Amino acid sequence: MLNRRSLLALLFAVSAIGAAWAQPSSDPLPSWNDGAVKKSITDFVARVTTQGDADFVPVEQRIAVFDNDGTLWCEQPEYFQAVFAFDRVKAMAPSHPQWKSQQPFKAFLSGDRKALAEQGEKGVLTLVAAAHSGMTTDEFAKSVADWLATARHPRFNRPYNELIYQPMVELLAYLRANGFKTFIVSGGGVEFMRVWAEKAYGIPPEQVVGSSGVTQYRLDAAGKPSLLKTVKVQFIDDGPGKPSGINMIIGRRPILAFGNSDGDHQMLQWTMAGSGPRFAGIVHHTDSTREYAYDRPSKIGKLDKAWEEAKAKGWTVVDMKRDWKRVFAFEP
Amino acid sequence: MLNRRSLLALLFAVSAIGAAWAQPSSDPLPSWNDGAVKKSITDFVARVTTQGDADFVPVEQRIAVFDNDGTLWCEQPEYFQAVFAFDRVKAMAPSHPQWKSQQPFKAFLSGDRKALAEQGEKGVLTLVAAAHSGMTTDEFAKSVADWLATARHPRFNRPYNELIYQPMVELLAYLRANGFKTFIVSGGGVEFMRVWAEKAYGIPPEQVVGSSGVTQYRLDAAGKPSLLKTVKVQFIDDGPGKPSGINMIIGRRPILAFGNSDGDHQMLQWTMAGSGPRFAGIVHHTDSTREYAYDRPSKIGKLDKAWEEAKAKGWTVVDMKRDWKRVFAFEP
Repeated sequence: MLNRRSLLALLFAVSAIGAAWAQPSSDPLPSWNDGAVKKSITDFVARVTTQGDADFVPVEQRIAVFDNDGTLWCEQPEYFQAVFAFDRVKAMAPSHPQWKSQQPFKAFLSGDRKALAEQGEKGVLTLVAAAHSGMTTDEFAKSVADWLATARHPRFNRPYNELIYQPMVELLAYLRANGFKTFIVSGGGVEFMRVWAEKAYGIPPEQVVGSSGVTQYRLDAAGKPSLLKTVKVQFIDDGPGKPSGINMIIGRRPILAFGNSDGDHQMLQWTMAGSGPRFAGIVHHTDSTREYAYDRPSKIGKLDKAWEEAKAKGWTVVDMKRDWKRVFAFEP
Repeated sequence: MLNRRSLLALLFAVSAIGAAWAQPSSDPLPSWNDGAVKKSITDFVARVTTQGDADFVPVEQRIAVFDNDGTLWCEQPEYFQAVFAFDRVKAMAPSHPQWKSQQPFKAFLSGDRKALAEQGEKGVLTLVAAAHSGMTTDEFAKSVADWLATARHPRFNRPYNELIYQPMVELLAYLRANGFKTFIVSGGGVEFMRVWAEKAYGIPPEQVVGSSGVTQYRLDAAGKPSLLKTVKVQFIDDGPGKPSGINMIIGRRPILAFGNSDGDHQMLQWTMAGSGPRFAGIVHHTDSTREYAYDRPSKIGKLDKAWEEAKAKGWTVVDMKRDWKRVFAFEP
């Protein structure tokens, strides 16, 4: 029987032949405009995948991590998971009277957007954690699927899972075709993302890293087990939590990382601090016509310190307006 | 360029051809004696991998989880990670005077084995967590590698990472050759296992699930980041924590699980409670000549309730003495 190593070698030989055949006639990143940004990506991939190159990286070390909100899909005018959570918190509020005097619930339930924004990303995550509890993991997954089937984005009037960035979907596929293992490393809830991430990005559940709540194992009277989602936070995968999440769950330092905000700053630093070839990318939201334009003063997806370090260190900064031929697949 | 789906299809076609070629002449499980136990494994794998069979399972759902201590490697006369931790706690004790009056440290430092055993598995895990803190993740990984290079098992006089069960190493490889993704799901520390698990079992870091401590992201004066291991427990992946760990980190319900003790009971229940074909296996330590014999009264690897359920429900119970031709690769 062929062993694992032989199969992998064969797989990547085939992959290389496929790439060599197809390269002249097809662009693996058709939604990216030609220029320095696109070239920085394809040059990096060429270097780390060319056997004999000083920067060659063995397949098992080709770990690529991507933030989700604002990097793979849209995060305006609210984090999409927050919209989902808001719908649920509203439905749950009557049975949680204490929320009337407790932040961030008070701000949200009274419709005080400003007070809610002042609670920052952690406030939103707390709301999300609370809104995701008191049900089994199976029931939760179903509620996310049901919400996706009916909810529509206020500006684009599309299901939220259609608001994924086509150039990034192409980048993920291009990296995988070159032997990379692609992971999501997001502040978003891991169970929320897994419901739709595989179909949207080709990223399987076991390669999604995110924030999580404590679950409680229970057996019903018939001996059937379930996992109850509690309000207790297990892990917040944001900011300095991202390197911790990568260490805890992936266990290898990535060689490529993509983010869009200061919540990704430490993940980008952590990726770049390893030895050998490294790639850090930032999606800069510059296109108010096709999507949104925001950076330093934004409450959602604030991009300030990570941007400074990117400029100082020559990390790749994607200008959505300049570098992307299209943003969404549904564009005409 | 070939897309991911085509490559996967090709990989498994090649794998199937390889398997078909090799099958008549070679046994994928040569260290297993023929009999009902071995047949239960090969029958299950045949059913879930045969296209058209009512029990066929698509490749992406072929998730297999294995406990580590007592299932993939030996856990007697002490958990190996405990031995590692004991060496470190001894070295760290002078700078932690409070440990003299604090359990489980007091019991351990005074050499009171009985009092330590009374603290149970959680006591050992607490000791382990404390012994793994106050250093960076890189320093910790190095200390594990150094320990493995010098420490020897008291009975077998071998490095601890040679005390892996050859039949289980073959089973892991056999499952992978049949499209399974193999994971460790262990109460042991995830960073401890990753140092040696890939070489020992062919399981990469990102497929090791275990207990973990909180890490703290820091930048030094030169801007170089590190992760400091703190004493705070992040997650205990044992007993009812195993289904929670599987849910949090893998995000899919396994179709095959192997354990050896009541610490694996809930993982086995969780695996068996899914729909479609399922396999639960228990390694029963029955061989005091080649390894150890223990089950119900054992403080380490106690096998009682999981065994009862295995008997009641017809799960596969491996009798090491009867079912394994050899236990360790180094046997004559």
